[in-house]
Amino acid sequence: MSKGITSRKENYAQWYNDIVIKADLAENSGVRGCMVIKPYGYAIWEKMQAQLDKMFKETGHENAYFPLFIPKSYFSKEASHVDGFAKECAVVTHYRLKNGENGEIEVDPTAALEEELVVRPTSETIIWSTYKKWIHSYRDLPILVNQWANVVRWEMRTRLFLRTAEFLWQEGHTAHATAEEARAETKQMLDVYAEFAEKWMAMPVIKGAKTESERFAGALDTLSIEAMMQDGRALQAGTSHFLGQNFAKAFDVKFTSKEGKEEYVWASSWGVSTRLMGALVMAHSDDKGLVLPPKLAPIQVVIVPIYKSDEQLEIVRREVAEITDKLKAKNISFKFDDRTTHRPGHKFAEYELKGVPLRLAIGQRDIDNGTVELARRDTLEKQVVPVEGIDSRIESLLEEMQENIYQKALKFRKDNTYNADTYEELKDIIENKNGFAMAHWDGSAETEEKIQQELKATIRNIPFDVPPEEGKCIVSGKPSKGRVLFAKAY
Amino acid sequence: MSKGITSRKENYAQWYNDIVIKADLAENSGVRGCMVIKPYGYAIWEKMQAQLDKMFKETGHENAYFPLFIPKSYFSKEASHVDGFAKECAVVTHYRLKNGENGEIEVDPTAALEEELVVRPTSETIIWSTYKKWIHSYRDLPILVNQWANVVRWEMRTRLFLRTAEFLWQEGHTAHATAEEARAETKQMLDVYAEFAEKWMAMPVIKGAKTESERFAGALDTLSIEAMMQDGRALQAGTSHFLGQNFAKAFDVKFTSKEGKEEYVWASSWGVSTRLMGALVMAHSDDKGLVLPPKLAPIQVVIVPIYKSDEQLEIVRREVAEITDKLKAKNISFKFDDRTTHRPGHKFAEYELKGVPLRLAIGQRDIDNGTVELARRDTLEKQVVPVEGIDSRIESLLEEMQENIYQKALKFRKDNTYNADTYEELKDIIENKNGFAMAHWDGSAETEEKIQQELKATIRNIPFDVPPEEGKCIVSGKPSKGRVLFAKAY
Repeated sequence: MSKGITSRKENYAQWYNDIVIKADLAENSGVRGCMVIKPYGYAIWEKMQAQLDKMFKETGHENAYFPLFIPKSYFSKEASHVDGFAKECAVVTHYRLKNGENGEIEVDPTAALEEELVVRPTSETIIWSTYKKWIHSYRDLPILVNQWANVVRWEMRTRLFLRTAEFLWQEGHTAHATAEEARAETKQMLDVYAEFAEKWMAMPVIKGAKTESERFAGALDTLSIEAMMQDGRALQAGTSHFLGQNFAKAFDVKFTSKEGKEEYVWASSWGVSTRLMGALVMAHSDDKGLVLPPKLAPIQVVIVPIYKSDEQLEIVRREVAEITDKLKAKNISFKFDDRTTHRPGHKFAEYELKGVPLRLAIGQRDIDNGTVELARRDTLEKQVVPVEGIDSRIESLLEEMQENIYQKALKFRKDNTYNADTYEELKDIIENKNGFAMAHWDGSAETEEKIQQELKATIRNIPFDVPPEEGKCIVSGKPSKGRVLFAKAY
Repeated sequence: MSKGITSRKENYAQWYNDIVIKADLAENSGVRGCMVIKPYGYAIWEKMQAQLDKMFKETGHENAYFPLFIPKSYFSKEASHVDGFAKECAVVTHYRLKNGENGEIEVDPTAALEEELVVRPTSETIIWSTYKKWIHSYRDLPILVNQWANVVRWEMRTRLFLRTAEFLWQEGHTAHATAEEARAETKQMLDVYAEFAEKWMAMPVIKGAKTESERFAGALDTLSIEAMMQDGRALQAGTSHFLGQNFAKAFDVKFTSKEGKEEYVWASSWGVSTRLMGALVMAHSDDKGLVLPPKLAPIQVVIVPIYKSDEQLEIVRREVAEITDKLKAKNISFKFDDRTTHRPGHKFAEYELKGVPLRLAIGQRDIDNGTVELARRDTLEKQVVPVEGIDSRIESLLEEMQENIYQKALKFRKDNTYNADTYEELKDIIENKNGFAMAHWDGSAETEEKIQQELKATIRNIPFDVPPEEGKCIVSGKPSKGRVLFAKAY
């Protein structure tokens, strides 16, 4: 424990909250369920955004922006969609405030909107109402558009990053001439998310398809990536939906095919959100604070001077200037913390808490010896190394740490994933072992529902990478063609 | 005229709208006053964002994110602030929809919020309610935070980019220990905006202070940059506010100074928005379409192949591959438009409309001669040049065009800016000459009001760069110490 962080063992939920607050990632605001993302947390989100945006563009997508508000009538056009979101919508009903009789500011009753506006919980309806104008012929397809935006879902029980009334996300919305193309897009974007999760967040994920009952409201198929958190629960880190022609039909979006036939357009949508920040915290951090994979760390190396006099500090400064020049040349981000108001020990604890991957300490003795002290955040190992070649050493250490953090999370997931061949085994895995359970399921919503009711575990997805295997459902005994992933989830 | 664009002379407002629509920048949505920013328009906005963000970070600012919703009680805390914004607020009153008796979706009356939420028109109140938690001592200062966000101001008469109910912007909100520091920040950010406008948008601006009646609601001082559009009207392109201690007092944000005294914190805020897109269009474009300064052009060079057979196209392709390799190396963005569905002439018109700075056409004859044809969008000049060294030539042409577009706009402003020494002269400049008028003003709100009523012209700002000059107010004859800038404005 450090700085009053609750340990994971003691109270995992509290540990998570402590890290988010004390590492300065985010905090609750005065607005119910809405968070403030603080600069340090936002800097991590910016790194996520930059990389995802690059990957979206490399796969041919462009960004655009659609209105925050959705007229109620648009929102209602796709039946299952509105069913899925109606209960959690913030609704704008008026467009003016006024001074009331008692001097209080109040909503002006004469300024009621003719049609109420829903604050977007997701943008399929407003976007498909627009695509109707953009799409006429096969030549207008595909449309490969992404939007970075805020969305609002009125959640009653919120947790920083994991479940908030307002959150930031990206939502891709694509339009295609054929079902095959739309399905290929759906799969491609899941792969992009998985690559981002594994290579950048250092977080292994399981790719698969959601069961019917867990699909996005309005989708024919929902794919997801699921990650294991350190308490053994699953966190859905991204979803990609094949929407069929549902929204094209709801908004009457047709195109003339090469053969001159009028057909409805095929669609996909896909998104990840600031929820990834919660996943990042819970996947890697420890009882000392945040642990960040170097590729997403706003500060990759913090440099702390050790000195007893202003004179010594000056000498250290000069040495540090040489080091930082080299780091700049290698595009390694750093911070030289030369605050004289805080002692080194205080600084060490602060950057440990904030998950800065590498700490470099340097004092007069180091300079005399031609060395510096390096401390790794992931393993907490310290080593005294030559200052000569420090930039290359740091570069390869950061790469090594990125891989190490991933491997550690992968091992954790493997160690906590079990095959369940009976209902009792499933129950034991979920309730006592706190892990992922791979089990046979008969494909029915009833079985899924029963397990959810009794064990509070859901089918996270039907993994793609699990070999087919004949078996019997652990509840009904009916035949099954492969194991699915059961877990408690965030 | 081209592609049905109205000429500037015929109808300037329609010309503007035609360009925004036909160059695929934005369009109106089904939501009153809200626009859809289309991919090509958004790509320009992304370039603006990237450069501004860089400049903010270079001046020590960090990004963060605050809630979209502001509780009505927060919003009401600063009296002049709420006065300024109350009449144009979208208000969320409910958090759920339900199925009505006739099967229609309706707002659930049982889900009324205890306290209504205002959709942020600007974030001073929600941010200062947060800063109260962040600021205790002088050590916590300054806070230099920026937010990229959407905001909503319920405008009755909207125009794409220039005035929309929802728009995208950035808002900086800084907290300081002294008035001097906050004032210096206010000025610094105005300078950043001016530099961005002039160096990136190629749009000359006049920096100055707003008169009291034109200040931001809650500010002690508002600085602005004002640009001249091609119809001689002014467009306020960015503002920076010195907020004094108004918000600190409204939200009780105090700090303990070095001397151990409790004091209220000093504040600034500053913002630019997607309105800049409108300014960009109106500052440079012509009757053939958009004209983009190369630094903000999503595509800097479009390459159009000229060919009569598939074989020729293949030969051109190979030549183009060599050219594009060189452009990549110089970080020049390009598009090779090898669509076989459109003729070169069609493509030429399309990219002219979209303001692509340079067009490179190449065919068999060019290859035989070792040349290419280059066409500049700004001057519409064409020249046949050697393919040898084409990358360097393009690079310097782009720089030349950036400067040329700026100089053209500067000359236009100079040619249309006049000194007015009598009220009649002012009237003539505003009503007939359609220009900026520099005139003496007695500093009174009455005079300002009279001119606004009679001539529909406002004092855009009190320019910083105008030499002091004793004079007499053109309305009251009272003494004045310098000329101020009058114009009709967007």
